[in-house]
Amino acid sequence: MTSIINVNLPQQSYEIAIAPGILDQLGQYLADLNLGKKVLVVSNPTIFKHHGERAIASLKAAGFEVASYSLPPGERYKSLNSIQKLYDIALENRLERSSTMVALGGGVVGDMTGFAAATWLRGINVVQVPTTLLAMVDSSIGGKTGVNHPQGKNLIGAFHQPRLVLIDPEVLKTLPVREFRAGMAEVIKYGVIWDAELFSQMEASKNLNQLRYIKPELIDSILTRSCQAKADVVGKDEKEAGLRAILNYGHTIGHAVESLTNYRLITHGEGVAIGMVAAGQIAANLGLWQQEDTERQNALIQKAGLPTKLPDGVDIEAIIEALQLDKKVKAGKVRFILPTQIGVVTITDDVPSETIREVLRAM
Amino acid sequence: MTSIINVNLPQQSYEIAIAPGILDQLGQYLADLNLGKKVLVVSNPTIFKHHGERAIASLKAAGFEVASYSLPPGERYKSLNSIQKLYDIALENRLERSSTMVALGGGVVGDMTGFAAATWLRGINVVQVPTTLLAMVDSSIGGKTGVNHPQGKNLIGAFHQPRLVLIDPEVLKTLPVREFRAGMAEVIKYGVIWDAELFSQMEASKNLNQLRYIKPELIDSILTRSCQAKADVVGKDEKEAGLRAILNYGHTIGHAVESLTNYRLITHGEGVAIGMVAAGQIAANLGLWQQEDTERQNALIQKAGLPTKLPDGVDIEAIIEALQLDKKVKAGKVRFILPTQIGVVTITDDVPSETIREVLRAM
Ligand SMILES: NC(=O)c1ccc[n+]([C@@H]2O[C@H](COP(=O)([O-])OP(=O)(O)OC[C@H]3O[C@@H](n4cnc5c(N)ncnc54)[C@H](O)[C@@H]3O)[C@@H](O)[C@H]2O)c1
Ligand SMILES: NC(=O)c1ccc[n+]([C@@H]2O[C@H](COP(=O)([O-])OP(=O)(O)OC[C@H]3O[C@@H](n4cnc5c(N)ncnc54)[C@H](O)[C@@H]3O)[C@@H](O)[C@H]2O)c1
Repeated sequence: MTSIINVNLPQQSYEIAIAPGILDQLGQYLADLNLGKKVLVVSNPTIFKHHGERAIASLKAAGFEVASYSLPPGERYKSLNSIQKLYDIALENRLERSSTMVALGGGVVGDMTGFAAATWLRGINVVQVPTTLLAMVDSSIGGKTGVNHPQGKNLIGAFHQPRLVLIDPEVLKTLPVREFRAGMAEVIKYGVIWDAELFSQMEASKNLNQLRYIKPELIDSILTRSCQAKADVVGKDEKEAGLRAILNYGHTIGHAVESLTNYRLITHGEGVAIGMVAAGQIAANLGLWQQEDTERQNALIQKAGLPTKLPDGVDIEAIIEALQLDKKVKAGKVRFILPTQIGVVTITDDVPSETIREVLRAM
Repeated sequence: MTSIINVNLPQQSYEIAIAPGILDQLGQYLADLNLGKKVLVVSNPTIFKHHGERAIASLKAAGFEVASYSLPPGERYKSLNSIQKLYDIALENRLERSSTMVALGGGVVGDMTGFAAATWLRGINVVQVPTTLLAMVDSSIGGKTGVNHPQGKNLIGAFHQPRLVLIDPEVLKTLPVREFRAGMAEVIKYGVIWDAELFSQMEASKNLNQLRYIKPELIDSILTRSCQAKADVVGKDEKEAGLRAILNYGHTIGHAVESLTNYRLITHGEGVAIGMVAAGQIAANLGLWQQEDTERQNALIQKAGLPTKLPDGVDIEAIIEALQLDKKVKAGKVRFILPTQIGVVTITDDVPSETIREVLRAM
């Protein structure tokens, strides 16, 4: 059975289609959208080895002219240089305005392919085929695309909505376990900020830390409910004027810790996990959230095999300074997303540094 | 008196304000729009020398924190490298989402500043203060931004509407005469494709080829009617889904000739002039336009000091091949904008190569 989730936006709406084995229908989906004949599949060597052939076979069977390109893997290559390479490939293959780039990969491939598509000929089609859990529930939906500046993550980018998001849970079987857990951090985030029912379902599961120990029905629920949460929020606030900021729950401190450990020691998801623990405790200390719920959240994070403590050697003052560099700083004030109950959060830029310091010291 | 033209778009509308001396009110205009405190003025050394001080003084007087940066002048530097430099400057000055880049310059500065603003933090404000005639009547309006790929003009870019376009005709006094004429090509274009009254007013003027020989009332009419034409078309078709293509009248062959002469021999405007002569004659040969009107158009082009012949040594077959590389090619077919009467054009991809060849041979 295929679950379809609609992302409803004023200028361009699109579907998220979720089903085991759906990768083999990629070509058919594109044909149904009436996209131009030329398709460039962008991936990386590992992902391409596992899943590239199937994607390409499906596109060719549907009559598309298919070219493919593998970017070097890793956040380190999420740079303007890689985008320049994609432009060259787009030119070589004479992509036209009606052509499509298909991002077959995790958030790194998805963000870069999306940005190249956003800026080639002032915008061509992009279709997201996410292959990590994080990309499935988060980065492939909502149109944020971009690359890193040598001095900061995702500083360069554009909003560019995909024409389609195609999610095949089976591709997760080849995903390294640490990457699976990184995605679980975002899933837990949706439970805390938006969907108390998803939170309860995860609480009820014995295991959360490896795909093969989780019941297929729960995987299905994790994917559809998370995608629905993201679609709901993005549908209400496409360009991050207000509500969409709640998706950054856990990300403010998470990003700071990631950047202070040079994006090497911890994954993005681990940063988010640490950030959620911190934000939850800040909320509790400010009297906004019950300590009991903080602990329920942290238990879920632990069950997913994610960290709840700061990595050794990270300097707390350096975190507090790094917060000032965040994209989301407005007039010098750091914006925090804080839970008030499970499934509900509030946005505030009124957190005293002393509270942040206190919470981080205790982690 | 200030003329205000509204550009009405679904997501973001803005004003084009035109008045002699209005540059001194730049700061006040930004303040009225409630833009954030930080402003980065982007220009080039020549333009900055003539007009930079006034712009900056006005912004400072209105309470803005102002930084400025000069890009090296010339189409050759309209590249991703220059954009990278702008990103560095944006970071150095800690531009935030509410901050503004002000493009003080011609189309080159405007397109690059617009693109940097479109892609910094996924989009910050840009205000266009055009200083060439071409930028005033064309490139500053409508949100097309971008840079060149080594192998093709404007292949990299994004749509990003300005918050305001501020036009001070007085800055044209320092503009070299050849650049003024380049802008006149676009003005004549509006006469042919959209505004027969503007066409007649220009026909009635004794001179068209130098600012100082043209009556102030006609300059005023040229600016306001051209901006109105561009605003009308863009307002009806922001993303170039259909109608907006008519703005490319003269540009298809014009671009090919520009690129075959390596953007050195002729200006963009001269290319457009040549392209309009060719397109007009193609229309006449196909029986779409009266030969008499073709000649009226060409007389206007000549009066503006613009060429009506192909530059020496350009190979006609090379032009026909280059047309195939145009961004506007769809399924291998070249799209032409052809006049049917003064003020009215039609769009067709049904022009036989033989007709193009015939017309170019006669030029
Ligand atoms: N655009 C957004 O809204 C958004 C949201 C969140 C995160 N992001 C971005 O996403 C990126 C992180 O994405 P990610 O966590 O997916 O990391 P990733 O894209 O780097 O993928 C993680 C690793 O898994 C490998 N991999 C991916 N799929 C696989 C599969 N099916 N089988 C085997 N190996 C596979 C990749 O090669 C890579 O080594 C960051 O750059 C972050 O900024 C973007
Ligand atoms: N975005 C769009 O919709 C659009 C439309 C048409 C053209 N364009 C782009 O615009 C560019 C051409 O723009 P342009 O014709 O303004 O050329 P330009 O920006 O290169 O300026 C021409 C020259 O005039 C100088 N100059 C500018 N203003 C001056 C002033 N007031 N006094 C003295 N010198 C001055 C500049 O230093 C430059 O040397 C091309 O790159 C083209 O692709 C964009």
